Amino acid sequence: MTDLPQTPLLDTVSTPADLRKLAPEQLRQLADELRTEVISAVGTTGGHLGSGLGVVELTTAIHYVFDTPRDRLIWDVGHQCYPHKILTGRRDRIRTLRQGGGLSGFTKRSESEYDPFGAAHSSTSISAALGFAIANKIADQPGKAIAVIGDGAMSAGMAYEAMNNAEAAGNRLVVILNDNDMSIAPPVGGLSAYLSRIVSSREFLSLRDLMKKFARRLPRPFHNAARKTDEFARGMTMGGTLFEELGFYYVGPIDGHNLEHLIPVLENVRDAEEGPILVHVVTKKGKGYAPAEAASDKYHGVQKFDVITGAQAKAPPGPPAYQNVFGDALADEADRDPRICAITAAMPSGTGIDRFAKRHPDRSFDVGIAEQHGVTFAAGLAAQGMRPFCAIYSTFLQRAYDQVVHDVAIQNLPVRFAIDRAGLVGADGATHAGSFDITYLASLPNFVVMAAADEAELVHMVHTCVAHDSGPIAVRYPRGNGVGVPLPETPQLLEIGKGRIVREGKTVAILSLGTRLAEAMKAAEQLEAKGLSTTVADLRFAKPLDEAMIRKLLSSHQVAVTVEEGSVGGFGAHVLTMASDEGLIDGGLKLRTLRLPDVFQDQDKPEVQYAEAGLDAEGIVGTVLKALRWNETGAAASA
Amino acid sequence: MTDLPQTPLLDTVSTPADLRKLAPEQLRQLADELRTEVISAVGTTGGHLGSGLGVVELTTAIHYVFDTPRDRLIWDVGHQCYPHKILTGRRDRIRTLRQGGGLSGFTKRSESEYDPFGAAHSSTSISAALGFAIANKIADQPGKAIAVIGDGAMSAGMAYEAMNNAEAAGNRLVVILNDNDMSIAPPVGGLSAYLSRIVSSREFLSLRDLMKKFARRLPRPFHNAARKTDEFARGMTMGGTLFEELGFYYVGPIDGHNLEHLIPVLENVRDAEEGPILVHVVTKKGKGYAPAEAASDKYHGVQKFDVITGAQAKAPPGPPAYQNVFGDALADEADRDPRICAITAAMPSGTGIDRFAKRHPDRSFDVGIAEQHGVTFAAGLAAQGMRPFCAIYSTFLQRAYDQVVHDVAIQNLPVRFAIDRAGLVGADGATHAGSFDITYLASLPNFVVMAAADEAELVHMVHTCVAHDSGPIAVRYPRGNGVGVPLPETPQLLEIGKGRIVREGKTVAILSLGTRLAEAMKAAEQLEAKGLSTTVADLRFAKPLDEAMIRKLLSSHQVAVTVEEGSVGGFGAHVLTMASDEGLIDGGLKLRTLRLPDVFQDQDKPEVQYAEAGLDAEGIVGTVLKALRWNETGAAASA
Repeated sequence: MTDLPQTPLLDTVSTPADLRKLAPEQLRQLADELRTEVISAVGTTGGHLGSGLGVVELTTAIHYVFDTPRDRLIWDVGHQCYPHKILTGRRDRIRTLRQGGGLSGFTKRSESEYDPFGAAHSSTSISAALGFAIANKIADQPGKAIAVIGDGAMSAGMAYEAMNNAEAAGNRLVVILNDNDMSIAPPVGGLSAYLSRIVSSREFLSLRDLMKKFARRLPRPFHNAARKTDEFARGMTMGGTLFEELGFYYVGPIDGHNLEHLIPVLENVRDAEEGPILVHVVTKKGKGYAPAEAASDKYHGVQKFDVITGAQAKAPPGPPAYQNVFGDALADEADRDPRICAITAAMPSGTGIDRFAKRHPDRSFDVGIAEQHGVTFAAGLAAQGMRPFCAIYSTFLQRAYDQVVHDVAIQNLPVRFAIDRAGLVGADGATHAGSFDITYLASLPNFVVMAAADEAELVHMVHTCVAHDSGPIAVRYPRGNGVGVPLPETPQLLEIGKGRIVREGKTVAILSLGTRLAEAMKAAEQLEAKGLSTTVADLRFAKPLDEAMIRKLLSSHQVAVTVEEGSVGGFGAHVLTMASDEGLIDGGLKLRTLRLPDVFQDQDKPEVQYAEAGLDAEGIVGTVLKALRWNETGAAASA
Repeated sequence: MTDLPQTPLLDTVSTPADLRKLAPEQLRQLADELRTEVISAVGTTGGHLGSGLGVVELTTAIHYVFDTPRDRLIWDVGHQCYPHKILTGRRDRIRTLRQGGGLSGFTKRSESEYDPFGAAHSSTSISAALGFAIANKIADQPGKAIAVIGDGAMSAGMAYEAMNNAEAAGNRLVVILNDNDMSIAPPVGGLSAYLSRIVSSREFLSLRDLMKKFARRLPRPFHNAARKTDEFARGMTMGGTLFEELGFYYVGPIDGHNLEHLIPVLENVRDAEEGPILVHVVTKKGKGYAPAEAASDKYHGVQKFDVITGAQAKAPPGPPAYQNVFGDALADEADRDPRICAITAAMPSGTGIDRFAKRHPDRSFDVGIAEQHGVTFAAGLAAQGMRPFCAIYSTFLQRAYDQVVHDVAIQNLPVRFAIDRAGLVGADGATHAGSFDITYLASLPNFVVMAAADEAELVHMVHTCVAHDSGPIAVRYPRGNGVGVPLPETPQLLEIGKGRIVREGKTVAILSLGTRLAEAMKAAEQLEAKGLSTTVADLRFAKPLDEAMIRKLLSSHQVAVTVEEGSVGGFGAHVLTMASDEGLIDGGLKLRTLRLPDVFQDQDKPEVQYAEAGLDAEGIVGTVLKALRWNETGAAASA
């Protein structure tokens, strides 16, 4: 904390009201100090860096020009919002980013009136902004809504749906397309190519041009044929046809780091009588910090780092990340099976598909931020004989739920789902938690749902997916690194719907699904120390259940506890349902289900989150003891 | 059956191979006979009529030109596929459409090799077609994929996502945009306006033009600047810029009822060396059948009707449809509360929002086929003080699941969900069944989930939604008409999480959620007749549960059965989970859960579907008796 940067001007600005007192010529200095502060803060905390650095000037300009918080500023995804947080009363907590009890790494309504709409998943901003704009229109009250959305996020279907509906908002809606030609990975697809053509085919608008153009009032809506002859409109909209066809006025491209351009343009946009307007701003991810600009990922997400050198804190050597185990295992399978292909939705490195793609470039597809398309595309591939793996984070697979149901499950097609980031995710918080996949998949007919207890199991389960030709199958696994077990030389084919007994005991049965197995084993030792002989089973399958094993365990132990890193309605509910269907509970059965709690858990260290959820060894032991009515002195009251 | 039309030429065609033997000049007659046959068949069965009539010529032309089934023809939504079914070996069963054991009203893989990809939900066709095309590309085998998609379906995000990814398919992919300016309701939004401008601003391509243009090879990909000077390209692509910017060659607009134009154009598209190509075809919904052309909905979905007069069989007078009860109740609420607004995704009449819109046009929003946008738009409205109702069918709400989780539930915003078509849906079959909403909503923190047992309850629940300002709330109700109870003069405010006892007994407790209440009451009478005194409770809330009531019912009855029209993981699972959490099952508890079976049920009469699911009175009684180990002679074995 001794290395805090000198920021004399920024020190005078704690809210946008302070900012607006500055003269325009002071904004360059303010932006420079703001950038320095962001770098310093993220150096301390780790987090998203490149995106925030790219919008330092844009953040400054928006708050300078628009009347936030009355005007509603909505950052798409929200991971670029650190400069925004600093300028909106949260600078004093900026070094608590992404930590337990600290600031969220995304925008969040409960944090500030300057965050009118929380985010974290991509491409929601235009829809939300439309909601704000139309609400103001209905109430006939002033206030604009400004959505800032990246070029990658603009490729998602819901952004298009929103644009398609935007015209009704008129000049209450401003969309700022932040084109940095780089979301998390380089963008893909037709829209990206289109934006590149616009930017490469013309100069940025000069200040003189901008002022000349804005000297006139914005034109009538574009279906007015007269507009076609309007010099203003032609100059203004050159290259933005796609957005115009959907009902926007297009302004751009504009250099997003040039405050002398940004300020007057945004002032004119603010005062325009017509709309909605789309402002195409070109920025550079990682701007102004040499190590970020030089890095291939532009320091998208970083560990704590040394501000001078940019060197990030290295994680201690340890087991490989699950995503890499998956990517390598799938590539190995694809060496043997030419039908295997892999789909990622803009997360090649996050899912390990980058490793697959290096070895099988022709069978690897990055569809961009387009989970819906990705899943149905996979269904089409499967229907034509391929065996596609959709590698999608649990939380993002929610985006494609209907496609999973309608295109995959109902048709019983052999699409395989590699569900990364299943369960709690630590610093990313509630928006990224993979809490619901067991519940929303295991309720679907035809589906097989597996959860890997460790990285070796993941390898076996990838192999099992490959062999399962008769319908859809999913394997879920957590964020982070494996537990350190050796990876198998030869993957094992698991029998569908069969679990394994990991430890044998007599009194207590722990039925674990997935990665809480290690805690289940710890719990078993603690129970054993209390004289309670404990069986631990790794059920492997949430669907179909290993009914024979469950029947046996429930009938031969005094108490049974299911453990899963998922919401109510999942594995535990299925075990209860089976036990009820078969009348197993009729005899009196101490069966308990441990699951994620009925709250959205905020970001924190994973171990804190697990403790909060009761999904650690202590939680398991406590549940068992309570079920046995174990009393304080350690004597079994009900034995 | 005496009125079957004379179709001498069609009688010679049972597969596309037969069709291809005809001379081009015979196709007009074939199309006319095909149209007559479609009208005759749907007159007998009811079903989707207008869409099929609009594509009679297109269906004929596609099968004539392309090498189906090797070339994969994918009908978006699939409700326009009746002519296709007639031409692809299913004419002998065409009068079994939508009936139990008969042909599906949509495309279906299990029915025919000519249905390579099933559909029913909108906007999946381009993604699926891309899958087929890319699979062929990887395998280096011939075969094109043709997606036929309506202008309404094109407004959904996933169609855009697919277009954005289409370029990689090259000439293996053909998208036929069937522009009838009318999906189920008139289309909305920027894309629709854009298509209208194209069509209104120019003539259809003349045959001479078409042939001249196609005399040249299709141009190089459009980023090639040279193409801009190519007369062919200019003529060909005029007006299709939006699609071109996304990577397509645009051809059109073309009169979709003129076979002399369609055939040569499709032949050229088939033989083009470049692609993907988008063919913009303009058709008329209901074409060729005067009563359909004259109807405002173009006979989108019809009852059985008289072919001569077009008069549809009238449903016998009876209770109002749930959707209308909802629409009227919401409009009444909106009279009193200016914050209430309503959102439909292209289903104004299906959801009753048309009735709301008549009374509150400024607060009614049809967002088009854009559920994702609709839900987040609602979240934005709610965040700015409005109280939006999203009226979306259960099965279509799956399209917006992530938005429900991420934008509504996590932010705990007061968005209200009116979930129509919850549960089984009869003739529409598995793709339209609302099976999963209880499971996927009740697992979400912050959510309140209600199910209406009858139309009066629905009115109360709409009122309860209005009053619930603290977070999201949903009410589900079924397809079809109410049960005939009087509608309340004044709606009642229900206490959140409180059920009601409908009938008191001592031995058996039936815990009903939603519309199986009537069957539960019947079951109670049958049980009473067997000497089993039966309580029936309408729990009303799947979340939060009425824990006090459940506790009491479970502890005071010998057997308890939950009943819901939803999948595993829902209401019953929540009751079991609560009972397990509290140790209620430890004492031995005959608790059973009745729910939808773990299969996708095909279309049939609703009562057949319910019997199959075990969700009728007989199913309930059988489950109770089995739980009590009631033996054949009627004596309780376990009492």
